[in-house]
Amino acid sequence: MLDVCLLGTGGMMPLPYRWLTSLLLRCDGSNLLIDCGEGTQIALKEKAWSPKPIDTICFTHFHADHCSGLPGLLLTMGNAERTEPLTLVGPKGLERVVEALRTIAPELPFDLRYIELSGVRERIERKPYVIEAFRVNHRVTCYGYAISIPRKGRFDAARAKELGIPLQFWNRLQKGETIAVGAEGDDVGPGAVGTGIVARRRGKTDGGEKTDGGAHSGATAGHMIYTPDMVMGEARRGLKVTYVTDTRPVPIISEYAADADLFICEGMYGEPDKEAKAREHMHMTFVEAAKLAARAKPQPRQMWLTHYSPSLLHPEEFMGQVREIFPRAYPGKDAKTAELRFEDEE
Amino acid sequence: MLDVCLLGTGGMMPLPYRWLTSLLLRCDGSNLLIDCGEGTQIALKEKAWSPKPIDTICFTHFHADHCSGLPGLLLTMGNAERTEPLTLVGPKGLERVVEALRTIAPELPFDLRYIELSGVRERIERKPYVIEAFRVNHRVTCYGYAISIPRKGRFDAARAKELGIPLQFWNRLQKGETIAVGAEGDDVGPGAVGTGIVARRRGKTDGGEKTDGGAHSGATAGHMIYTPDMVMGEARRGLKVTYVTDTRPVPIISEYAADADLFICEGMYGEPDKEAKAREHMHMTFVEAAKLAARAKPQPRQMWLTHYSPSLLHPEEFMGQVREIFPRAYPGKDAKTAELRFEDEE
Repeated sequence: MLDVCLLGTGGMMPLPYRWLTSLLLRCDGSNLLIDCGEGTQIALKEKAWSPKPIDTICFTHFHADHCSGLPGLLLTMGNAERTEPLTLVGPKGLERVVEALRTIAPELPFDLRYIELSGVRERIERKPYVIEAFRVNHRVTCYGYAISIPRKGRFDAARAKELGIPLQFWNRLQKGETIAVGAEGDDVGPGAVGTGIVARRRGKTDGGEKTDGGAHSGATAGHMIYTPDMVMGEARRGLKVTYVTDTRPVPIISEYAADADLFICEGMYGEPDKEAKAREHMHMTFVEAAKLAARAKPQPRQMWLTHYSPSLLHPEEFMGQVREIFPRAYPGKDAKTAELRFEDEE
Repeated sequence: MLDVCLLGTGGMMPLPYRWLTSLLLRCDGSNLLIDCGEGTQIALKEKAWSPKPIDTICFTHFHADHCSGLPGLLLTMGNAERTEPLTLVGPKGLERVVEALRTIAPELPFDLRYIELSGVRERIERKPYVIEAFRVNHRVTCYGYAISIPRKGRFDAARAKELGIPLQFWNRLQKGETIAVGAEGDDVGPGAVGTGIVARRRGKTDGGEKTDGGAHSGATAGHMIYTPDMVMGEARRGLKVTYVTDTRPVPIISEYAADADLFICEGMYGEPDKEAKAREHMHMTFVEAAKLAARAKPQPRQMWLTHYSPSLLHPEEFMGQVREIFPRAYPGKDAKTAELRFEDEE
């Protein structure tokens, strides 16, 4: 399961009734935040969530409404006694910007680690998340993010039985572990074979082939090696959330919104006749955002709009035309949440 | 009249129900802000006030809860199309800190001017305000502020009549202007005499003395010079607000709180038994703050407590013992306002 919370929906400046746009993802006890404007830590507190389990913060770009809340959040994480390192992801210049902001938060009980993006497309694995960053088109360098939770294939118990794999190894194989068993039938431990992938490769290089019993012949004579692919089916559809803000509509957005469970997209202006203004300020109208969702192949399952202009008081008033273009579009609102579940997940 | 608004009352971190401690003063169309933590601009917006007329921002010190809201506020002031320069006052290092924060607000349509404090006591005139800064005792360099609105003496119309000062000059004399009149009775303009103070000094240096007509004999032969002191009484009691936060109790605080119309003072902890904790963190309990007010001579007219620990939920519960020490003590709360008026002001 992936918990999604749109902490705020405002652009430009925080308002008494609207926090700045920011997204929190929660999965397997590790939280990932995208953007952190002024007040984001308060929005988090309003949900009664601690900032302590935030392991990764991704920044789309360095305009203040997307990063001015960072020093306060870091201090609050420190006060919550976080000691594990925090990974920050963002455009080139990230370390310079964050270190400047840290002038007012110089002492923290945890380390900051920086991943600076420079390519048009980048891919980062931060378990349980796979983070894909893609460059969009704003006044300054700006990235969109597609965050995925991959899902392994199904465990094939019948096959495991057929191959004679001892029951006590099933759970470890499901977790992706490779198991080497000594000549006496003892598990010689993962140290003997390294990671699953390496073990399989070694097995092949060493001319290993399936025995009648179904186990790989190991690198060391007399050992049996059980690998996950022996009992796990093809990887299944995972979960994916795509987050895009502060950009003109560009095709790469549709590409990364494709097949997303949730596509969160900026809509600075509700009124379709504000397209000229959107163009001038390098933002989008609701209609432009909806067209991006409609063009994605396959289309995202739903879209939430966000990053409203302070002058846009009632986004829901402009949804009619949007839904003609992309029916599963909804106006984002502060603290809007979704619990995304894998297909057939309880 | 001096409008006072305690925009927030929190210490350490902003909370959903409590903004960070910050004070807004409004007088004669010019606003002065003390401290600007994360969310201060939202607190301002909640009052439906524009940040545009803020001409001066004073910082007590550079901990994030007192200055992290600055970049956002500056951008919002820019969006409100402020073009007049903004003066920032704060401890040494101010320009370095603010310029670092401005990494995310690099382009503003107005200039920033810096006044860095280094002395134990400093005095700055920023009309209509007189700003007195005094060093307190925190973990980092920290200043308290006493902000005064001076009040001129009363205009003595009988005396002006007696001195034969033409009626058309009365209003200008009341405003503090010095008026030079040529031999033909024409006002030769302020350019002829410079500022009032200089003119009077010049008059004296040049051996000027009162004529029978009552006007000073000017620097230039044949000119008459009318100065405000000829018709204005002694300066009257003005207005004064003293603001102190993030410090242990030190005598200089009572000194500057003396005779204040309003003394706003930190009380991080309500529980008197938290004095050891207050000492450790270089903060104060309510009782310690009350003692500072009680020791001031003359005592301030009232005191508001602020800068509460996030763990302090109901400050009003601890006011009993405080009022035994200083009866006119009140727990500050977000958006608490006062309209301070001069004595006998309508």
